[in-house]
Amino acid sequence: MKGVIYGITPDARIVDLTHNIQRHNVREGAISVWRAYPYFPQGTVHIFVVDPGVGTRRRPIAAHLHGQYFVGPDNGLLTPVIVDAERDGKTVEVVHLQNQKYWLEKVSRTFHGRDIFSPVGAHLAGGASLADMGKFITDPVRLELSRPVITKNGWEAHISVIDSFGNMTLDLPAAALDGRTDVRFRLKGREVSGIVETYGHKPAGDLVVVVDSEEYFEIAVVNGSAKETLNASVGDMVEVLLSE
Amino acid sequence: MKGVIYGITPDARIVDLTHNIQRHNVREGAISVWRAYPYFPQGTVHIFVVDPGVGTRRRPIAAHLHGQYFVGPDNGLLTPVIVDAERDGKTVEVVHLQNQKYWLEKVSRTFHGRDIFSPVGAHLAGGASLADMGKFITDPVRLELSRPVITKNGWEAHISVIDSFGNMTLDLPAAALDGRTDVRFRLKGREVSGIVETYGHKPAGDLVVVVDSEEYFEIAVVNGSAKETLNASVGDMVEVLLSE
Amino acid sequence: MKGVIYGITPDARIVDLTHNIQRHNVREGAISVWRAYPYFPQGTVHIFVVDPGVGTRRRPIAAHLHGQYFVGPDNGLLTPVIVDAERDGKTVEVVHLQNQKYWLEKVSRTFHGRDIFSPVGAHLAGGASLADMGKFITDPVRLELSRPVITKNGWEAHISVIDSFGNMTLDLPAAALDGRTDVRFRLKGREVSGIVETYGHKPAGDLVVVVDSEEYFEIAVVNGSAKETLNASVGDMVEVLLSE
Repeated sequence: MKGVIYGITPDARIVDLTHNIQRHNVREGAISVWRAYPYFPQGTVHIFVVDPGVGTRRRPIAAHLHGQYFVGPDNGLLTPVIVDAERDGKTVEVVHLQNQKYWLEKVSRTFHGRDIFSPVGAHLAGGASLADMGKFITDPVRLELSRPVITKNGWEAHISVIDSFGNMTLDLPAAALDGRTDVRFRLKGREVSGIVETYGHKPAGDLVVVVDSEEYFEIAVVNGSAKETLNASVGDMVEVLLSE
Repeated sequence: MKGVIYGITPDARIVDLTHNIQRHNVREGAISVWRAYPYFPQGTVHIFVVDPGVGTRRRPIAAHLHGQYFVGPDNGLLTPVIVDAERDGKTVEVVHLQNQKYWLEKVSRTFHGRDIFSPVGAHLAGGASLADMGKFITDPVRLELSRPVITKNGWEAHISVIDSFGNMTLDLPAAALDGRTDVRFRLKGREVSGIVETYGHKPAGDLVVVVDSEEYFEIAVVNGSAKETLNASVGDMVEVLLSE
Repeated sequence: MKGVIYGITPDARIVDLTHNIQRHNVREGAISVWRAYPYFPQGTVHIFVVDPGVGTRRRPIAAHLHGQYFVGPDNGLLTPVIVDAERDGKTVEVVHLQNQKYWLEKVSRTFHGRDIFSPVGAHLAGGASLADMGKFITDPVRLELSRPVITKNGWEAHISVIDSFGNMTLDLPAAALDGRTDVRFRLKGREVSGIVETYGHKPAGDLVVVVDSEEYFEIAVVNGSAKETLNASVGDMVEVLLSE
């Protein structure tokens, strides 16, 4: 893929965002792109290849969102990025890629990352027009994203992403608590009371809740892996309870 | 290695092709370079350091093939790239590296990737002449590459490479079948009938054969690992049988 | 982190030095930076994020040493690089980062690599002044580094670093032997006599001692892992014995 990109746009600067997405886990890929894109400069082209449907009738797409480009399979991976744009009233432009002039001459059935997404991304980085690459669509595939459910005395939140250290982020933003600190988190028969400022404030091995780098609650084990300690998975429910 | 390269050629663009070659597996390295090089632009310098013989009398070499450069130990890793050039009647230039002017001043016995191959590659990328780096040779080490054997009703093919997903590519190109589809693949007591267009056309867990991104047959398990399912290794024989 | 860097200094060239440091292992990180920095060009900015104390009162720092910059948490990771500079009588400039003008607007409690170190590093690479970023300090945290102890007939050395192949480097430089070759290495109930020039000079599976790429003694298993064979760890003592 990088050879193809440099062949088309020699002065591209390429970043490997992650190679650690669990195979075929579109949801995990979606969260990874969504966490990273706000930190990339205008004009960045994101190419994503979590692509279990490669070679089937799933569409190849490219999108223009937040001043950046996103190229990959139409499998829902862009859902949270699109939801952000819609929430902020920004333009959402998505194109079904059809103009083979921007693809490699020979397209394999099993590696569209190399044969379609990389050349399209390189041409976009080099200044080509999104509109010229296919036809605009309004129905990109959307993932069902988990959302916290309000309960009598708190929320049913869910684990939305687990990082390579085993830290587990919930789908509940810290702002939901509105400054309250009398909160307990329950999952897998364990309970954590209160929020600590950072891992280093508790001894190694302690199960703690912190506010993560995107301002969501995160369940962690100090110098350990919460995922392994609790044997937890993305999607698991976490009860968040206020005191009265 | 990258520090050395940028020190010599500050405007180089560096790509990590792979860090997943099994330790000392020259054959796997050879297939990786061979699969990737056609997608890189003219003038690319490939540095390879699968180098079990570092510090012994094995020669350091650099080659000019297909308009690209290849730098590394003389251990056969370039064999399939050289075979491609010979088949196409292209020039094969290989130099035994001897001009220490292009090396780091101090060469260790255990890390020629940093001390010889990186500076030589950086100088080639910066425009230095291959001829100035040593003396041309015509006897680079060659690997014995597996080839399919024609049988009464098909071929004895072999697994030539296994990727990080556990998909296993054979040494038999899809073109060998000449459009026929009445074919069966037998290995490890299992049999697969016919070829599917892509993984997504069968349910998860199915053992299938597809045509891979280089137009060779590939044995895969949908959303799983064929390597683990079959406990197979590079070199294992696969019977490919036509119907009559 | 890379998105932040390119947003500030678009023509930066970014190298991933390593992602294989054991979690929170500051000592291993320190050795990795120390082994690599001499091979990077003047003006290089090294950003390091082995940061178990993120979000606590540990200081963020940046240093100017050997004509290169180093940015990260004040946790001792720079100790061997500082010791090198002091030994050579070079200037050691270390700044406690305090000028938030060079940070991201919003700083999280758990990811200073992205929010402080990357923007500071990018501004340094772009030509900003170290002095403008905070206040000079003379008491950066220092690690206790292991040193070989002289004994009646040799040294008590220690394993200072283990690489991804399981090769184990000692804290004893080869120069200590002053050319003598009648030496034995004892650890974990095993003994190795003499030094071989390189791995390839012994059969696979043999336990050997070589001089590594930084001129320190290294214990290795030919085509195998010394770490696994001996069940050894960083810090383990190794007796180095001369003949009389």
